[in-house]
Amino acid sequence: IRIVSKVSPLLDSLIEALQCLPGVGPKSAQRMALHLLERNKNAGLILANTLEEALEKVDKCSECRIFTESDKCQICSNEKRNQNLLCVVESVSDVFAIEQSNQFNGHYFILHGYLSPIDDIGPDELALSSLFSKVEKNSIEEVILATGSTLEGETTSHFIFDYLKDIKNLKITKLARGVPLGGELEYVDRGTIMHALSDRQVLKEEN
Amino acid sequence: IRIVSKVSPLLDSLIEALQCLPGVGPKSAQRMALHLLERNKNAGLILANTLEEALEKVDKCSECRIFTESDKCQICSNEKRNQNLLCVVESVSDVFAIEQSNQFNGHYFILHGYLSPIDDIGPDELALSSLFSKVEKNSIEEVILATGSTLEGETTSHFIFDYLKDIKNLKITKLARGVPLGGELEYVDRGTIMHALSDRQVLKEEN
Repeated sequence: IRIVSKVSPLLDSLIEALQCLPGVGPKSAQRMALHLLERNKNAGLILANTLEEALEKVDKCSECRIFTESDKCQICSNEKRNQNLLCVVESVSDVFAIEQSNQFNGHYFILHGYLSPIDDIGPDELALSSLFSKVEKNSIEEVILATGSTLEGETTSHFIFDYLKDIKNLKITKLARGVPLGGELEYVDRGTIMHALSDRQVLKEEN
Repeated sequence: IRIVSKVSPLLDSLIEALQCLPGVGPKSAQRMALHLLERNKNAGLILANTLEEALEKVDKCSECRIFTESDKCQICSNEKRNQNLLCVVESVSDVFAIEQSNQFNGHYFILHGYLSPIDDIGPDELALSSLFSKVEKNSIEEVILATGSTLEGETTSHFIFDYLKDIKNLKITKLARGVPLGGELEYVDRGTIMHALSDRQVLKEEN
């Protein structure tokens, strides 16, 4: 459905353009457009300018492929972070999530997707050769494979593992699978419970 | 919560700026920003440009206060529409809704709000004097008061009615209240049923 207001072609174009945002349909786009015009012109102008600047200047970091407006991102250029620890993730939002846990102090490598032959996404699209040469050339001690816990994520992880497994003095790990924090067992899915059981932790060995 | 990615100040600014949109919090803003950067740079640039142009050029129509980039909006300058019929609504989205019903061929007057002394919104903010002089000077035959069916909407409607009621040869109407189309009686609220009962329509008079 395209909403045609019959009122202003420019307003119609704005409602159309807003629908490029994920999760925004014609109705929300109309609400957003009218909200900005009626109540928030200044914030709207700031948004327009920031968006234009970000799309022009932000690109992938030459080291880790995270988004940055510099050549090297703030994580890669931070000398306090552990250069010997590399975490491989599917997307930039995964980096945000891991950073918020405050539990990781190493570097990242962002695949920007997962292997998917149907969609023509192979090792080249994920820049895997650049990942491999990074691991081979630098003194990386551990690679954490933190792709999604989906079929595609696991496949991608496995592909990377297959290549890296023969490199000497390299530890390769993956994220623990199990019951999420605050998760009531009743509502946890079967697969997760299977993992939680088979990877169960010992509290006390038999005497 | 402000999401600070520690990665790119410009990306952070974009996530911040996107939150001026109604219904968009930090998480959706992050999703939108990454979506545009990862998959949809072109659409994002179009959005930035359209937004900037719309905010600069679109203003209120001098006649009816609807949004338009011309001096007179497409409705006011459409000579096929009935100039003698005026529908008073609270917001531009109400115009969209009424236009979609294809049941109205007159002109509009948009209040851009309702009377609300607490928020310092009085007759001046709603440009009521301009509405009144429009009704007095032009050959308007009927005014439809189509403000919202809320306390504030009814109060505003009543205020306008009070002023207009003494103008000669002017019909004043309001929208019918009743059960919405497709509404199951079981789920219709008490107030609506009260209105539907008191305004019930005669199918056949007693013989």
